[in-house]
Amino acid sequence: MLSRFLFVTLLLMSASMTFAESRIALVVHGGAGVSREELSPENEAASRKALEESLQHGYEILKAGGSSLDAVSAAIVVLEDSPLFNAGRGAVLTAAGTVELDASIMDGATLKAGAAAGVQGVRNPIHLARAIMDKSPHVMLTGPGAEAFAHEQKLRFEPAEYFILPERVEQLKKAKAAALKQASGGRIPTMFKVGTVGAVALDKQGHLAAGTSTGGMTNKRAGRVGDSPVIGAGTYAEDQVVAVSCTGHGEFFIRAAVAYDVAARMKYQSVTVDAATREIIKVKLPKLGGEGGLIALDSKGEVSTPFNTPGMFHGSIGTDGTVHIAIFEE
Amino acid sequence: MLSRFLFVTLLLMSASMTFAESRIALVVHGGAGVSREELSPENEAASRKALEESLQHGYEILKAGGSSLDAVSAAIVVLEDSPLFNAGRGAVLTAAGTVELDASIMDGATLKAGAAAGVQGVRNPIHLARAIMDKSPHVMLTGPGAEAFAHEQKLRFEPAEYFILPERVEQLKKAKAAALKQASGGRIPTMFKVGTVGAVALDKQGHLAAGTSTGGMTNKRAGRVGDSPVIGAGTYAEDQVVAVSCTGHGEFFIRAAVAYDVAARMKYQSVTVDAATREIIKVKLPKLGGEGGLIALDSKGEVSTPFNTPGMFHGSIGTDGTVHIAIFEE
Repeated sequence: MLSRFLFVTLLLMSASMTFAESRIALVVHGGAGVSREELSPENEAASRKALEESLQHGYEILKAGGSSLDAVSAAIVVLEDSPLFNAGRGAVLTAAGTVELDASIMDGATLKAGAAAGVQGVRNPIHLARAIMDKSPHVMLTGPGAEAFAHEQKLRFEPAEYFILPERVEQLKKAKAAALKQASGGRIPTMFKVGTVGAVALDKQGHLAAGTSTGGMTNKRAGRVGDSPVIGAGTYAEDQVVAVSCTGHGEFFIRAAVAYDVAARMKYQSVTVDAATREIIKVKLPKLGGEGGLIALDSKGEVSTPFNTPGMFHGSIGTDGTVHIAIFEE
Repeated sequence: MLSRFLFVTLLLMSASMTFAESRIALVVHGGAGVSREELSPENEAASRKALEESLQHGYEILKAGGSSLDAVSAAIVVLEDSPLFNAGRGAVLTAAGTVELDASIMDGATLKAGAAAGVQGVRNPIHLARAIMDKSPHVMLTGPGAEAFAHEQKLRFEPAEYFILPERVEQLKKAKAAALKQASGGRIPTMFKVGTVGAVALDKQGHLAAGTSTGGMTNKRAGRVGDSPVIGAGTYAEDQVVAVSCTGHGEFFIRAAVAYDVAARMKYQSVTVDAATREIIKVKLPKLGGEGGLIALDSKGEVSTPFNTPGMFHGSIGTDGTVHIAIFEE
């Protein structure tokens, strides 16, 4: 009787473990800060399509038993290559009219990480972040040093014309005008301050990964680095805990160590991913004055996507396989 | 009777509050990684003297009612100007033979922060970090963009000869030889990987501040950024919680979000500063393979200075006013 009970228990345990281990999930974002008034129906449709394509690229890898790191990279590459988001092609312009890109990636299994900041010409900064993680003893490389490493690793470069879109040149002009206005008491519209892409994934082996890529803030000073390439601020992943990618006014996300704070609250307070992220995005950041949002995925596949801006482009394929795309709170 | 009891209670409360509010403390470090064999008696005496001078400069500010931020800056400037430590003058050399400096500072009262990474020619990078915090909307500036801002702020610059010392040129040669050896299976000595200066302070108003400044790793790749300018990794301060400055193999400190993790454990697990720092430096980091140490100061003036390397140059003036300087565990 006892042995039979044990047998059934073990059978159930192994079944539930297999089930748990084969749970896969992927969440992507295309930046917080968009408002209903700013978003045309055409732009909305195109953005939703790009988010779906990003999810599909990443999810195929997870379904085939690939790693969460590979899925995160693949999902982000789609958004970097799309002119719609503030990363890779179509990134916002610095005050000098150039494109300076930042990206980071983190492996929850090993806590290894790679980050590139202030790089020009690299087509897919997320690939550079990955190469820094995998093929250098460093975590963070910046500027020409990072570009030299990208050349050594034979990563693809593109000329300035590839990155710089006419609408971003227009946006820079407006941002400069707004900055002048701000100097005389006005306020810089949120749309000039935010926008980033990112992905978090859980693979069949139960490993979590997170990645983020951005062009930063429109009209930013040359050399300015936001939270996206800062491990613990814009990106963090730790197996058995959570994977996080942030988007928003980066300075506040650095000061609040947002991505790691999600993990810390889950580890030390034993709260759910949703309780942890909401406390940070809806309470802690607004107190500081920080606008933005994040995507988070825990080790059971629970998804959390809070934001304190009017909208955030985001999408997910949960453990039940259903695709969900949203921009505003429902 | 009751009113008398209340009166005495209030009197005691206000006395204890005044006492608590007037507690001041300062802790400084000059880098982890030194071993007894590497340290000559002359070098030890000179280092102790410099640490004492650094403490005095910072402590005078605190005694006079100045801010913890000013005390941290003043203490760090002494160590940056000293040729003995890996920050400012006497910083280690990059693979290209240049000096690339990183620094950061954080204000526990407002959670404001400033950081500069990969800057050349700025005499006191901690002043640049402070200017970025106080006079720009950004937290982190890198490379030429950060240098341009330093020029705008009229910070003092020095020529390459000021920073580059003959012993560092010698050290670079040795590090390059060691790197070649490592490529064939050897191990890079700890002394080439670590070294940084930092300070944490508690002022009469009860405000905490932290700052860190470094030249990074000998023979580092151009553009490599370690934990020192990364808020949450190398530096963190939050009033009522803790101020932290780290030193060590920066890549591991970034991956483990060390400085913020000290604060998170204290906030969410309600452990003491010593319990929090020891768990990270003596358990978590060694598991990852990370060598180094940190200085931490909580809001009551409790000091914690753990390290997992043979030695760490550090000193403190506690709430009782006694000066303590140490390099190895006693």
